[in-house]
Amino acid sequence: MLSAHEVLAVVLQIREGELSVLLWRRALPPCEGEWALPGGRLGADESLGASIRRQLAQKVDVRDLSHMEQLETRSDPGRHPQRRTLATAYLGLVPAHIDPVVPADTGWHPAADLPPMAFDHAAIVRSGRRRLRSKLSYTNVGFALAPPEFTMSELSAHYRAALGHDVAATNLRRVLLRRGQIEETGRSVPSGRSGGRPAALFRFRARELEVTDAFAVLRPPG
Amino acid sequence: MLSAHEVLAVVLQIREGELSVLLWRRALPPCEGEWALPGGRLGADESLGASIRRQLAQKVDVRDLSHMEQLETRSDPGRHPQRRTLATAYLGLVPAHIDPVVPADTGWHPAADLPPMAFDHAAIVRSGRRRLRSKLSYTNVGFALAPPEFTMSELSAHYRAALGHDVAATNLRRVLLRRGQIEETGRSVPSGRSGGRPAALFRFRARELEVTDAFAVLRPPG
Repeated sequence: MLSAHEVLAVVLQIREGELSVLLWRRALPPCEGEWALPGGRLGADESLGASIRRQLAQKVDVRDLSHMEQLETRSDPGRHPQRRTLATAYLGLVPAHIDPVVPADTGWHPAADLPPMAFDHAAIVRSGRRRLRSKLSYTNVGFALAPPEFTMSELSAHYRAALGHDVAATNLRRVLLRRGQIEETGRSVPSGRSGGRPAALFRFRARELEVTDAFAVLRPPG
Repeated sequence: MLSAHEVLAVVLQIREGELSVLLWRRALPPCEGEWALPGGRLGADESLGASIRRQLAQKVDVRDLSHMEQLETRSDPGRHPQRRTLATAYLGLVPAHIDPVVPADTGWHPAADLPPMAFDHAAIVRSGRRRLRSKLSYTNVGFALAPPEFTMSELSAHYRAALGHDVAATNLRRVLLRRGQIEETGRSVPSGRSGGRPAALFRFRARELEVTDAFAVLRPPG
């Protein structure tokens, strides 16, 4: 069977304390006026990864992305009303200190409270949220959401937004230090609370994805 | 662009202490005589998941599979010598106590020592091994490799084969009990060593994939 193939991206960022996803509003049928994930048709001579980077560049500066990975390929025969179309979705993350310039038809929406969405794109956003939540628990992917330096109060607010439940700053600090994910910068900022001690600034030690939770028992010896 | 789309499966099993992958030998060009992953063309009216189950049924009884998940979609424009072909690969696991009946052109090969393979299938096998290794560290996916009941000595041999490095039975027992992955059956078998105590039999508590490593700090409260 020959089929059309499109690439899509779930681009997530913590914005004003909320996990947000980049969507654009469709101007033409099908699904006119509904919101959709950025992306489009795969070109004849490009890989999926090259294609999504090319197409995202029209919506958001690709250099703003701190992490990108393939999420899943959707293939339900009924997912597109007009023709058989497979879609490979990527998960992209933008760190909190960047505010990408986006076109007029494009905007950020709360990932937990989506507007009416075209095709199966709402389900793909949910897949992206699940992948992010899982990876926050067993990798260092927090680096891709956080600014270069942060207080633990700020970082725990980002984790809270991404996970959708409360995260105590003191516990998060202990776990991420023990796993070697973060380190102190040696600098601090005045506490927001009046009379509070200055808050230490931390940073992630790596800027690429690493699995950091492997128990000693499952690690190679030595 | 219209493209051909195929589905492939990396079916893994621990066989005689070795992580093994199910391959078939191609009888026709391209890549005649080379070994390939089971699978084939996606049908017009089926999803990728339904397609790989249908196609695997021709090579191995699908009921033999204890776990299946989508692995990745390959799209390098040069991956097929004749026409643009995308391939979505699945990871399938067969538990150690089953010996599936396979056709004459099909057999098990050590995943770490592959024969000459067609297309990019060797790279896809490596992706499947990496996925399995990662998931052994942060999920209960061991249930899909192990027989229904096992001694810790047997289970650690399976982990050793899948991970490619030594795993101490006592440490593995401690970690998997703490994570609530396994439980004692209350039964035991005679120790293999002469004069040894009987070895306790364990089983996995769940037969579906669960993320079991989330630290308390990242879990929802309550």
